Amino acid sequence: MSRLPIITFLTDFGWAGGYVAVCEAIMNRVSPGARVFHISHEVPVGDVAAGALTLQRTTPTFPPSVHLALVDPGVGTDRRPVVLATERGDMLVGPDNGLLLPAADALGGLRGAWCLDAALVRERAGLPVDTISSTFHGRDVFAPAAALVAATADPAALGRPLEPITLIRFAPPTATLNDDGAVAQVIEVDRFGNVGLALRFDDLTPQEGHFLVEVLGEHLPEWTARVVRTYGELGSGELGVFCDSWGQVALALKSASAAQLLSLSRGMMVRLTALQKTHATTGSA
Amino acid sequence: MSRLPIITFLTDFGWAGGYVAVCEAIMNRVSPGARVFHISHEVPVGDVAAGALTLQRTTPTFPPSVHLALVDPGVGTDRRPVVLATERGDMLVGPDNGLLLPAADALGGLRGAWCLDAALVRERAGLPVDTISSTFHGRDVFAPAAALVAATADPAALGRPLEPITLIRFAPPTATLNDDGAVAQVIEVDRFGNVGLALRFDDLTPQEGHFLVEVLGEHLPEWTARVVRTYGELGSGELGVFCDSWGQVALALKSASAAQLLSLSRGMMVRLTALQKTHATTGSA
Amino acid sequence: MSRLPIITFLTDFGWAGGYVAVCEAIMNRVSPGARVFHISHEVPVGDVAAGALTLQRTTPTFPPSVHLALVDPGVGTDRRPVVLATERGDMLVGPDNGLLLPAADALGGLRGAWCLDAALVRERAGLPVDTISSTFHGRDVFAPAAALVAATADPAALGRPLEPITLIRFAPPTATLNDDGAVAQVIEVDRFGNVGLALRFDDLTPQEGHFLVEVLGEHLPEWTARVVRTYGELGSGELGVFCDSWGQVALALKSASAAQLLSLSRGMMVRLTALQKTHATTGSA
Repeated sequence: MSRLPIITFLTDFGWAGGYVAVCEAIMNRVSPGARVFHISHEVPVGDVAAGALTLQRTTPTFPPSVHLALVDPGVGTDRRPVVLATERGDMLVGPDNGLLLPAADALGGLRGAWCLDAALVRERAGLPVDTISSTFHGRDVFAPAAALVAATADPAALGRPLEPITLIRFAPPTATLNDDGAVAQVIEVDRFGNVGLALRFDDLTPQEGHFLVEVLGEHLPEWTARVVRTYGELGSGELGVFCDSWGQVALALKSASAAQLLSLSRGMMVRLTALQKTHATTGSA
Repeated sequence: MSRLPIITFLTDFGWAGGYVAVCEAIMNRVSPGARVFHISHEVPVGDVAAGALTLQRTTPTFPPSVHLALVDPGVGTDRRPVVLATERGDMLVGPDNGLLLPAADALGGLRGAWCLDAALVRERAGLPVDTISSTFHGRDVFAPAAALVAATADPAALGRPLEPITLIRFAPPTATLNDDGAVAQVIEVDRFGNVGLALRFDDLTPQEGHFLVEVLGEHLPEWTARVVRTYGELGSGELGVFCDSWGQVALALKSASAAQLLSLSRGMMVRLTALQKTHATTGSA
Repeated sequence: MSRLPIITFLTDFGWAGGYVAVCEAIMNRVSPGARVFHISHEVPVGDVAAGALTLQRTTPTFPPSVHLALVDPGVGTDRRPVVLATERGDMLVGPDNGLLLPAADALGGLRGAWCLDAALVRERAGLPVDTISSTFHGRDVFAPAAALVAATADPAALGRPLEPITLIRFAPPTATLNDDGAVAQVIEVDRFGNVGLALRFDDLTPQEGHFLVEVLGEHLPEWTARVVRTYGELGSGELGVFCDSWGQVALALKSASAAQLLSLSRGMMVRLTALQKTHATTGSA
């Protein structure tokens, strides 16, 4: 843990309503020396997979830190509140619903896991023990726990150890590699309309020329896309295949939404098939 | 006032355009040691009541602080710029239009009130006195005043005392309790589509079973809702009555918008009537 | 440069996806003592002119600082990554696409310009030199460069000097003054629907009474607008001409969108013609 502890903070709360601010106030009260970095509070409401992806991508850029992540549609049910310690020295705090494990993988893997005891957390944080809401565990349990862990680096004082095998884990998105392309799941549509696939660009064969792009299981037009390094190489209306900011294969249009053009959303499957040079054309095939 | 002063900041500016940043820059110039916490800048444009509710809910979680709040459709008219001191030791800075008093109530009540003298504020802040815009008092008057109060804790140096009775106060939202339920006003629709009522959950009778939900004065369907502790207990499409994050009665659907289902918006009146067990059904009555 | 360096940060990234946070993490790693102020991350995607306007308006309110600005549709092409030093002591870091120069003008003018050498930046920042993406230079080049400049104030160590004349500059928006009004380009439509014109209010003649408002080159109705100091003076549905927060002429409706009423968007031309008192009426002429 660094000298001045860092807490990163990711939720689906949005900034309206003050829910983020209330959690930040609690953290400041419990651990005034900690510095809070807001990763995003714009995760789509209740979309655990989207939150997990953003958490996994962003946390490795921070030094070993406490990462508070709250996308928690099961709040108030028996889903477990947990702290996960990583081999790199991070602590992930949030619900046991699949949100945290992909980030733990990216941070060197799990070193330990604990189930938070809400009453113990509140007692150690100096908060009234008997006033835990059923709907806002961010404020009542998770934010105090994250701040305590930032201050003491000792999750064992806040609950009982867990067997890591019992933690909930999403099935990873699927991808199949071929000699002349791949079939891969859409894992993201970003603000620019770029479509991210569950496929490392380094695994794509070939890494130049043109691909035929088909959406599986839907009666949608096929498209031809050209491998480019960046948006700026694309002509107007031309579909591109490129290596995105996280090293994954993505589809993009210049100054327009590839997701809208291809009618793609997260979870859908896309087949990329390398085209012989003679077949390469621009636009709809 | 704490050693390192805290300024909380709430507006309807949005983050686009840089209006928030300009106010923050002014505060940093006048009081470099203060720490700014952003409560929300997503208050609906000009919606003083919505801003007042968020301010009232969030400020008590902070230690005694300076709270700068700007939802100010009357900027540039003769509405008064004010500082309110609370019994708890907070200072609320903003327009006298109803925005601040509910928070002052939640922070222990008023201990004093002052009308800001814009020229005096700017002089003490080391800013040119003759360059006050008619449209951006956040930058020109309120942000410097908040920073000065954070630095000196002395609002009396920035204007003349006010009689608290002259401050503008909203009529509180209405609620009437019955033996078998209540009639209460909608005070909030949040990002999840949950509908908050002007009714403490502790005041609701009974606190279990089912309620008939009617929207008064509108020809809308009636619904049956079940009292639950949390979203997770609801079935798909089932309407729930629960105690929200602020201790108020709220209506919710699991993974959908209760406000949309019931055609509810802020200000509308809802009647909750306890149902005998034999009448309880799910869905539209 | 102030003792505790300030980095302001403006992008079109939005907060979703964690792109802003990743840049902030890099800056914290390279220059842990710097304080980051978020100007806005809501610049419309790829809208360099809108970003330039916000940057130009907001940066002068900060003390001499490092200003990192990223609206960069040409990322990965041969557009140059640059640092501009201003006469006032600021450093502007971003792409050479017109984004930075209006701010440099507002900060006292250019004192020097350098083209960033990406490999040199990464080496000095202690980052792997051979892992520069084609699509996220914010993370890979600009954020480390801004943090290095904040820490050392020495852009000359990060690249070669540039001739300022070679920097890309937008044609400034046009305005023509007449004895009885002006023709001016729309430079902004804000969140309130107010329409900002490329015209200093001090240059408008007369500065009272009524103006006829015509949209040039479009078959749109004409409107009559009254010069007011602030929104609050307007009647319901009345169009106002006023001096906005930045000293420019703007058109506004009370509690409604002037842009929508007049079908105006950025780039369109508006003619304002002073009306004799006998002609002044409210509403559509």
